Amino acid sequence: MGSEEVKVVSFWVSPFGKRVEWALKLKGIEYEYIEEDIFNKSNLLLQLNPVQKKVPVLVHAHKPIPESFIILQYIDETWKQYPLLPQYPYQRALVHFWADFGERKLLNPSWVAMCSSGEDKEEALKVAREAMEKIEEEIKGKKFFGGDNIGYLDLALGWISYWLPVFEEVGSMQIMDPLKFPATAAWITNFLSHPVIKDNLPPRDNMLVYFHSRRKALSSSFKGWFKV
Amino acid sequence: MGSEEVKVVSFWVSPFGKRVEWALKLKGIEYEYIEEDIFNKSNLLLQLNPVQKKVPVLVHAHKPIPESFIILQYIDETWKQYPLLPQYPYQRALVHFWADFGERKLLNPSWVAMCSSGEDKEEALKVAREAMEKIEEEIKGKKFFGGDNIGYLDLALGWISYWLPVFEEVGSMQIMDPLKFPATAAWITNFLSHPVIKDNLPPRDNMLVYFHSRRKALSSSFKGWFKV
Repeated sequence: MGSEEVKVVSFWVSPFGKRVEWALKLKGIEYEYIEEDIFNKSNLLLQLNPVQKKVPVLVHAHKPIPESFIILQYIDETWKQYPLLPQYPYQRALVHFWADFGERKLLNPSWVAMCSSGEDKEEALKVAREAMEKIEEEIKGKKFFGGDNIGYLDLALGWISYWLPVFEEVGSMQIMDPLKFPATAAWITNFLSHPVIKDNLPPRDNMLVYFHSRRKALSSSFKGWFKV
Repeated sequence: MGSEEVKVVSFWVSPFGKRVEWALKLKGIEYEYIEEDIFNKSNLLLQLNPVQKKVPVLVHAHKPIPESFIILQYIDETWKQYPLLPQYPYQRALVHFWADFGERKLLNPSWVAMCSSGEDKEEALKVAREAMEKIEEEIKGKKFFGGDNIGYLDLALGWISYWLPVFEEVGSMQIMDPLKFPATAAWITNFLSHPVIKDNLPPRDNMLVYFHSRRKALSSSFKGWFKV
């Protein structure tokens, strides 16, 4: 038993780490949570993820696995109960496509928009809002991206329900307009109502303090980013 | 039969498209190749990949799948002969990790280094050479990343064998020093000796002309990229 133990090394406010915890909880897998200080990285993290030095890391039977999407797939292949990915290769491919799209076209630009100003912010907001339009089309007519149950893509995009409103408040901006994106708004309600999700979210007040300080620290980092 | 037909929409010099073609050929899957003009995109491409508008796209039984890594996984899940991914979830996770690493830490920086100059080029070269060190460690003692046969990671990193030398020549730079990275140099020889690979490479002279023109067109695009 002990040799099969599961650990999650993460940082309290990481949306990437939460994906992993949600997946384990949906599957009913017990795990030990290890909080990492990402501003003063532990030897444990450097040893578990020497190449990237990033959280989250899943440790299963002493084997470390980095990168939240790779971890989600590993979890789904290792524990078969409560499948996260669809049964057929084509549907699986689409899920991977949209997960990747959400990361590049919505999460990254939302982050940049929160931290930047002027032309950079405008460009980032444009990309993020265009991505929201595509996501709205995808969720229309469904309770979850996974159908009747929360699946891989719900976990991948789950940050939209709870992190994005904080980014919007910190960045004094709006990306997820519920009037323009009613299907996404309904999905957010469904997602946040699920017991596994609502009981596993970081405290909003602490998030606001944290992201305000990140915004301040990174405010000059994204000058001209969109030209690259 | 006709309904199961396989098509690859790509651009002659795309290393991403070649991954897909190599995978199909290794598995002995017949396909129709459709050349796309990426500078004047066809209605076919816009219809098959409306979100990204990028090559390659695999079309299988009229279903379009974009993104080379997603396509590779789809191919491996759909046609079981000549498995590309390892059998066990942990080894599969590692393959995905290194494929992603190669993309972010070697392919992108090599491309930036080829196109840029001065401080930008130096920073890009530093990242790329550090990535080469990690890749050298991974291939040591093996014929292929996949073991005795070409696997997913060999296809993912295959561009190192043939595109990288062209990038180096066009950018007047060296990233893959065979004296510093002898195991990678041996892997390149093994990879390029495989009939499926050596018979499916774009003509080097045309590549030089093409990438010289890309370098010229993009030379001012990466100013300050590493600060982002």
